[in-house]
Amino acid sequence: MKINALASYQTGEPLKDYSFDSGELQDYDCLIKVLACGICHSDIHMIDNDWGNSRYPLVPGHEVIGEVVELGSQVRHLKIGDRVGVGWQMSSCLQCPDCLKGNENLCDQNQGLIVSGYGGFADYLKVDSRFAFHIPEGIETEAAGPLLCGGITVYAGLRYAGMSSGQEIGVIGIGGLGHLAVQFASKLGNSVTVFTTSQDKAEFAHQLGANHVVVVPPGESPPPPTRLLDIIISTVPQSLNWSAYIEYLNSDGTLTLVGVPDAPLTIPLFPLLMKRRRVMSSPIGGRGMIVEMLSVADRFGIKPIIETFPLQQVNEAMQKVHDNKVRYRAVLKVS
Amino acid sequence: MKINALASYQTGEPLKDYSFDSGELQDYDCLIKVLACGICHSDIHMIDNDWGNSRYPLVPGHEVIGEVVELGSQVRHLKIGDRVGVGWQMSSCLQCPDCLKGNENLCDQNQGLIVSGYGGFADYLKVDSRFAFHIPEGIETEAAGPLLCGGITVYAGLRYAGMSSGQEIGVIGIGGLGHLAVQFASKLGNSVTVFTTSQDKAEFAHQLGANHVVVVPPGESPPPPTRLLDIIISTVPQSLNWSAYIEYLNSDGTLTLVGVPDAPLTIPLFPLLMKRRRVMSSPIGGRGMIVEMLSVADRFGIKPIIETFPLQQVNEAMQKVHDNKVRYRAVLKVS
Repeated sequence: MKINALASYQTGEPLKDYSFDSGELQDYDCLIKVLACGICHSDIHMIDNDWGNSRYPLVPGHEVIGEVVELGSQVRHLKIGDRVGVGWQMSSCLQCPDCLKGNENLCDQNQGLIVSGYGGFADYLKVDSRFAFHIPEGIETEAAGPLLCGGITVYAGLRYAGMSSGQEIGVIGIGGLGHLAVQFASKLGNSVTVFTTSQDKAEFAHQLGANHVVVVPPGESPPPPTRLLDIIISTVPQSLNWSAYIEYLNSDGTLTLVGVPDAPLTIPLFPLLMKRRRVMSSPIGGRGMIVEMLSVADRFGIKPIIETFPLQQVNEAMQKVHDNKVRYRAVLKVS
Repeated sequence: MKINALASYQTGEPLKDYSFDSGELQDYDCLIKVLACGICHSDIHMIDNDWGNSRYPLVPGHEVIGEVVELGSQVRHLKIGDRVGVGWQMSSCLQCPDCLKGNENLCDQNQGLIVSGYGGFADYLKVDSRFAFHIPEGIETEAAGPLLCGGITVYAGLRYAGMSSGQEIGVIGIGGLGHLAVQFASKLGNSVTVFTTSQDKAEFAHQLGANHVVVVPPGESPPPPTRLLDIIISTVPQSLNWSAYIEYLNSDGTLTLVGVPDAPLTIPLFPLLMKRRRVMSSPIGGRGMIVEMLSVADRFGIKPIIETFPLQQVNEAMQKVHDNKVRYRAVLKVS
């Protein structure tokens, strides 16, 4: 069928109408009528070809929520009318050791929706149903999209760093990722310390559930710690004084990075050595983790704070995301 | 009582006779007649004040094996005549959360034997009995010393990186630490890949139990991997091309550093991010881990390969350690 989308035709270009034929539904495919789609900084990185793997016309949108309208012959876990979500990943080999362990996100053959296919800034999305996830009833359609990318990124980042409950969790940055990390950590029974650059966000962090806030003006380092943390998740795309943050980690503590800094990490060994600390990084999450995250978000009332835009204002919305002016995730209302 | 020791009187100076009074035995102290004492690179670092915390006269020796000859009034777990060993650590607060979890080595108040006290290059050693460990019968006196420092360093480094069995373990460097790491990993049911700079050591690594060897000439980087590893332990004091080694890690793999490189770690994020890899560092081990390590070494026949020296040749032995000419740990026969 013909899909009407919005695409960037060349590196850095604003979005324009673009139509293409979706082709036949394969055995495991599903066709989704798009209801809403989040806008993520990664969409802008892809339009700008910041990672060197963009193909044009590029249809952004990898926080897609929609209704199933057609199913391939082999699809059993979805039915027509189901409300589903699709995130960053559109496929993996499903047979390698990573996939078999539920780490499809680590599969060497994993493919990003807007890297290898067309995204959700469109009226319909055809996608492998194995990467489409039921949205629990309690999660609103507009709020669901950001969970599929930002939500799973911080949830998996925290879980693989060892977050359970009763811990001291640090969150660097209160933006699209950070405001979700605070909620997950707090509502799952942890004490949360937020590092943010502004006093405004400090107050907001408390509303989200943060117990403590350390204001670190841009370009500065945090003061010496008065409280040690088991896990610190960095959600910002900047290079920070990592040593200063590592000093905030307890013994066996972990710094987990889900924001990609603009320079390699430079870390002296002794702060790691003396307290057996670790540094790691985590990309999105596997399918099992996504299902778990959606269930947790539903049961514990974790909600992205969103600003919605009609589809026609997509370029204005993109600009606002680019300028970091959205509080805290932008979502397009598609139909 | 009067203890006859060997001490460096000033930064970098060779060892000379030094006598001191041991003072009274405190309630938890024990007096040990020294039988043998390993020589470690850290002894030389301390003599040279490389870490800025040396006090002189400095009596080296923190791989001490001896026989208990006197006990403080509160000591219950040792008896006169027991063969015991003392490693790097001589005390900790025993009450902080780290100590209570068996991580005395991470205690903020932990004290090193040759940092805050006098070491084992002496006829007797007076030490807190809670940091003296029974040596299992199957471990020879001369071979036991290096386990208390080199052995626990690699054993804990591997365990806290998640080593169990059936895994692929990489060991960077075949020296005093590395030749023990290969044995622990191999005899505990893992496949071992060694990275070494010389073909000679490659053959030796196979004898120790290594399954695969990658020869990396000094200053070069390893070739792209043909086999992925769950854990890599770096036992060398050099800065390496960490990115190239991280490429050898499997998903969720860990690079654990127990050798202290001569520069901060510089690590680009993407190799960590794409496979959710980690970097950590680990210092010696807690008391429970030391007891476990000694038991494993005993039951699985893990033996430091040693070169012994009479006490009178201590300075020649130290020079040989300094020049990396000992295969693989030097041990002084004291009495």
